[in-house]
Amino acid sequence: MSKIKVGIVGYGNLGKGAEQAITQNDDMVLVAVFTRRNPSEVKIATAEAQVCHLDDVLQFKDEIDVMLLCGGSATDLPEQVPALAEHFTTVDSFDTHAKIPAFFQEVDQAALRGGNIALISVGWDPGLFSLNRLLGECVLPQGETYTFWGDGLSQGHSDAVRRIEGVKQAVQYTLPLEEAVNRVRSGENPSLTTREKHARVCYVVVEDGADQQAIEQTIVTMPNYFDEYETTVHFIDEATFTAEHSGMPHGGFVIRSGESAQQHKQIMEFSLKLESNPAFTSSVLVAYARAAYRLSHNGERGARTVLDVPFGLLSQDDPATLRKRLL
Amino acid sequence: MSKIKVGIVGYGNLGKGAEQAITQNDDMVLVAVFTRRNPSEVKIATAEAQVCHLDDVLQFKDEIDVMLLCGGSATDLPEQVPALAEHFTTVDSFDTHAKIPAFFQEVDQAALRGGNIALISVGWDPGLFSLNRLLGECVLPQGETYTFWGDGLSQGHSDAVRRIEGVKQAVQYTLPLEEAVNRVRSGENPSLTTREKHARVCYVVVEDGADQQAIEQTIVTMPNYFDEYETTVHFIDEATFTAEHSGMPHGGFVIRSGESAQQHKQIMEFSLKLESNPAFTSSVLVAYARAAYRLSHNGERGARTVLDVPFGLLSQDDPATLRKRLL
Repeated sequence: MSKIKVGIVGYGNLGKGAEQAITQNDDMVLVAVFTRRNPSEVKIATAEAQVCHLDDVLQFKDEIDVMLLCGGSATDLPEQVPALAEHFTTVDSFDTHAKIPAFFQEVDQAALRGGNIALISVGWDPGLFSLNRLLGECVLPQGETYTFWGDGLSQGHSDAVRRIEGVKQAVQYTLPLEEAVNRVRSGENPSLTTREKHARVCYVVVEDGADQQAIEQTIVTMPNYFDEYETTVHFIDEATFTAEHSGMPHGGFVIRSGESAQQHKQIMEFSLKLESNPAFTSSVLVAYARAAYRLSHNGERGARTVLDVPFGLLSQDDPATLRKRLL
Repeated sequence: MSKIKVGIVGYGNLGKGAEQAITQNDDMVLVAVFTRRNPSEVKIATAEAQVCHLDDVLQFKDEIDVMLLCGGSATDLPEQVPALAEHFTTVDSFDTHAKIPAFFQEVDQAALRGGNIALISVGWDPGLFSLNRLLGECVLPQGETYTFWGDGLSQGHSDAVRRIEGVKQAVQYTLPLEEAVNRVRSGENPSLTTREKHARVCYVVVEDGADQQAIEQTIVTMPNYFDEYETTVHFIDEATFTAEHSGMPHGGFVIRSGESAQQHKQIMEFSLKLESNPAFTSSVLVAYARAAYRLSHNGERGARTVLDVPFGLLSQDDPATLRKRLL
């Protein structure tokens, strides 16, 4: 059987993760990585694949079955996905929640113009967490849905700490507050805001002679980012920072705490504990690339999300094999 | 908008649960319960619905959109589902894992003959657990999948204890062994058999003058059921039994412990903690009844399983609303 020919646009953490994830799926092959940088300066891990400039992407129209768009949600994806969905089957991880409806519309029109499938907002949140929110409310219509994030690295909050004068290196982890988690898991159905559910912990390396007390004060009082959270700041040396805080762990859980009609408490939970957030997100993208390929071969056209895709399409196995093995 | 008209075949725990679950879904209405008993002797909770003999079910061909088959997997469903799938859109919870492939074939042919959709083996295992096994292995192709059951009442094991002479009442709970669970959650990927993952706990009421020591010995040495498990027996009085052991709790979890390509450990877990197993299973059936109805309206024909159904079809909301609310 011929392999699914995959292209990757963007070669940051997510693009590199996707390249690696493809190696775990023996029905797929990476054809090319597309970049806006000078291709000769981008070294990729896959010997058999090419590195090309994004401007040349249309030359690959007949050589790529699915294009994985691995750029950022702020500026890359809003521009690249509508442009490429007209010419390729695409999968992206657009994650600006509030802008998803408008993004969907635009990508849908582009995909319909080109007769393609475009799977948008694939990943774990949005993505697998969205699926579990939906499943929870459909199976237990009477109840509450809770999402907790962490333990995990927050890129935006880490950046905010790094911008403080005297800070040399910094990471910020978001942690679910155990007391809040336990109240939810017990079926109590409390009302909790995001800040009542999470704490923030920072690990900071300071420049020589910097005022640690002033830095700590600046962090814990920073409006929007930290001031309303339970925030802890740890000062560490650079060697410890490099050894212990170079990874990108993340995770979290979606809990549906419901009652069936005769007041029986029923609790559903989906959780992730990830040593590498980009490696996992790109693994999700690659699994859904297979589904996008199949949808396209089945004659479907337009934009789709994970909510539209049966899990059976994610697998290399045919439906009869899946029924026998997994039901 | 007109409601989805639902019928229920079989009025045991599952049928009663389905009747209750329908009341939590305002786009559905129960039309009739079908029974093999004398209908005048079956009292149901829904004033607006009829109770009819199963022999008369074909008279309702044009009055029921989806038929929920709530009989047992041993003898009821293998007979009833193929017979009814020719005339109705059906949803069942057939759960004899080894027989699912043959059951699917037979139901598929019946459903195709009648131009209907038949959703088989809906529930939580098979069902939601199967979905999570599939998702886990597709997103993390390199790894192990573990299923733990419990804390939960096992009907078969409870029956086995009740058959012992001198036993008046008994329940058996299956419990996941914490040490095994922790090893799996840590990402160790141990090799574990079902019996290495679970313990069994019995609560027993004895007849006056019965030999408790002999009964305990009979339980813990019972071949296949208990002899190879860590089994604990508690003797209690009848009042305690009635007060504390009349429910049907269950649950469990599916864990995928995998590694992405650069050796990052990634753990996915789906868990259920259910005060009432039949109430939850029937809630799943009812959510999938909506999906079966939609598949049928979309012109699909034949047998399907949960692996073939996008979660979006489970919801009353249209896709645009779901994207806005849940992604």
